[in-house]
Amino acid sequence: MSIIDLSHQIALGIDIGGTTTKFGLVNSRGEILCQNTIRTDVHEDVNDFIDELYAVANPMLEQYAKKCDLIGIGMGAPNANFYEGTIEDAPNLLWTGTTPMVELMTQKFKTKTIITNDANAAAKGEMQFGAAKGLKNFIMITLGTGVGSGIVINGQLVYGHDGFAGELGHTIVIPDGRKHWSTGSKGSLEAYASATGIAITTKEFRNRYPASLLHHYSEAECNAKAAFECAEKGDEAALEVFRFTGEILGKALSNFVMFSSPEAILFFGGVVKAGDYLLKPAYEQMEMDLLPIFKNKVNFAVSQMKESDAAILGAASLVWEN
Amino acid sequence: MSIIDLSHQIALGIDIGGTTTKFGLVNSRGEILCQNTIRTDVHEDVNDFIDELYAVANPMLEQYAKKCDLIGIGMGAPNANFYEGTIEDAPNLLWTGTTPMVELMTQKFKTKTIITNDANAAAKGEMQFGAAKGLKNFIMITLGTGVGSGIVINGQLVYGHDGFAGELGHTIVIPDGRKHWSTGSKGSLEAYASATGIAITTKEFRNRYPASLLHHYSEAECNAKAAFECAEKGDEAALEVFRFTGEILGKALSNFVMFSSPEAILFFGGVVKAGDYLLKPAYEQMEMDLLPIFKNKVNFAVSQMKESDAAILGAASLVWEN
Repeated sequence: MSIIDLSHQIALGIDIGGTTTKFGLVNSRGEILCQNTIRTDVHEDVNDFIDELYAVANPMLEQYAKKCDLIGIGMGAPNANFYEGTIEDAPNLLWTGTTPMVELMTQKFKTKTIITNDANAAAKGEMQFGAAKGLKNFIMITLGTGVGSGIVINGQLVYGHDGFAGELGHTIVIPDGRKHWSTGSKGSLEAYASATGIAITTKEFRNRYPASLLHHYSEAECNAKAAFECAEKGDEAALEVFRFTGEILGKALSNFVMFSSPEAILFFGGVVKAGDYLLKPAYEQMEMDLLPIFKNKVNFAVSQMKESDAAILGAASLVWEN
Repeated sequence: MSIIDLSHQIALGIDIGGTTTKFGLVNSRGEILCQNTIRTDVHEDVNDFIDELYAVANPMLEQYAKKCDLIGIGMGAPNANFYEGTIEDAPNLLWTGTTPMVELMTQKFKTKTIITNDANAAAKGEMQFGAAKGLKNFIMITLGTGVGSGIVINGQLVYGHDGFAGELGHTIVIPDGRKHWSTGSKGSLEAYASATGIAITTKEFRNRYPASLLHHYSEAECNAKAAFECAEKGDEAALEVFRFTGEILGKALSNFVMFSSPEAILFFGGVVKAGDYLLKPAYEQMEMDLLPIFKNKVNFAVSQMKESDAAILGAASLVWEN
């Protein structure tokens, strides 16, 4: 009988962002052994991007090749398609059309590569290494510049028939509501609950409350961070910003719960720093809108991962089976 | 090597409705070999109900016992819980609290019994025997007195962590919209797209259109059927009833699609008789609200099962593995 020491298995996790691509070697315990970054937005040709990635990542791989066993490469990227292994028309990447990322990576690195969108990768990372360990049914909501989501049902990420499932940020919560700055849709969750949306709300509420501390901030500074700082000082306008946002988030969550009946909703991202200012009204609204059979059953949890590590861990986690 | 003739495998399918319980023996090809009904609403004690069910169903089972192999009993019922094998507080059944239906049935019939809610059973039935054969990712929407749903992801019914997933009729489409007559929630899909909801809308639109043919119907007759009859004659108010309802249905469907990215949405139930009057505006609205990556990918399909057979087939289908 041979005993496999899983701690010697490593994966290369790569997170492709609009500006920066982060990557690192991760072991089966979710420890990042080494990491680095390259710029994404300087490579108009994806082949140049992969060449630079290889130039920086391959020395890392060779360094660990003697003592560890590289079992694969996991990638998280906007608009990435798990089934096709492609990135399709990601609005914040320079590569237009369909980029056959898995094919290009496999050719270059000669290693099995898996790709999915960044929110799915985050959910898988939490299930493998983080706050969702042991959970079989949960929804991860990432509240950052945008609103992303990863849905887990029966221990498996939901990809849908085409690999694009789980775009909960774009579901409509308020029909004919706020117009989204990029999709043009009206009243989507992202239009309100993203940092971008909260900045808009903060400016709106500042105008409504002449005595608000938000007036100490310039128009440009008047964002989610400013709202949080003012909320901490008890500013009514700032508290209203989060109550308003939280209620819309709660309405959306209630619909999600009646879809897949998860045991938990896990939050991640910069906006979550607002904590109970946001999550308490969200929880209360969600509970109010749920059918009785769903009430008092869904836990709220906040990711404990360091933001700088989460993207790499999420991408790397794709390589391990559940 | 022994060859199993699957056509000799049969299942007892039982559909528990508020008034009537239908049941029948079904073979693996989805043929109903024999069927019968008993009254549900005359048995305040669930044990009496099961005694009568046994009295009527067992002779059927004995008749087929010689030539067929009974592989199990499948049941569809409102508020039924697949994991627990129970019916929990179904508002239209006399049995209050939690009814351990699977336990009681197994004791009486000495046969493996599976239960789930009626909408899930319908979805499983379509996957096993009907319009959803071969589909791995679809959502079934039943538009009857209420709005039910069964969600299939990767070929499996979605039950959620507690067995109650898929209550799409109760998701909120129009926040602070029409109050639901029984749940009290405001703006749920069921409040508009069920036969009950459409009857309310029909009365509203009749009042708005003084020249409408709907005025030939009494207040009580002014329902989805009346609206359909008038729509067939080109009545503007009636056409508006379905356009209004279809648009709300389409808004809801767009959110569902961005959740699980199904390849098809399958409709069933009396309301679907309205056909394109309802489904065309629903489709157009859904497409309008979808993110570009989801557009032109989702097929609409209408169940071809006879309504009288569908409930029995759905229940029986639970017994077969996919």
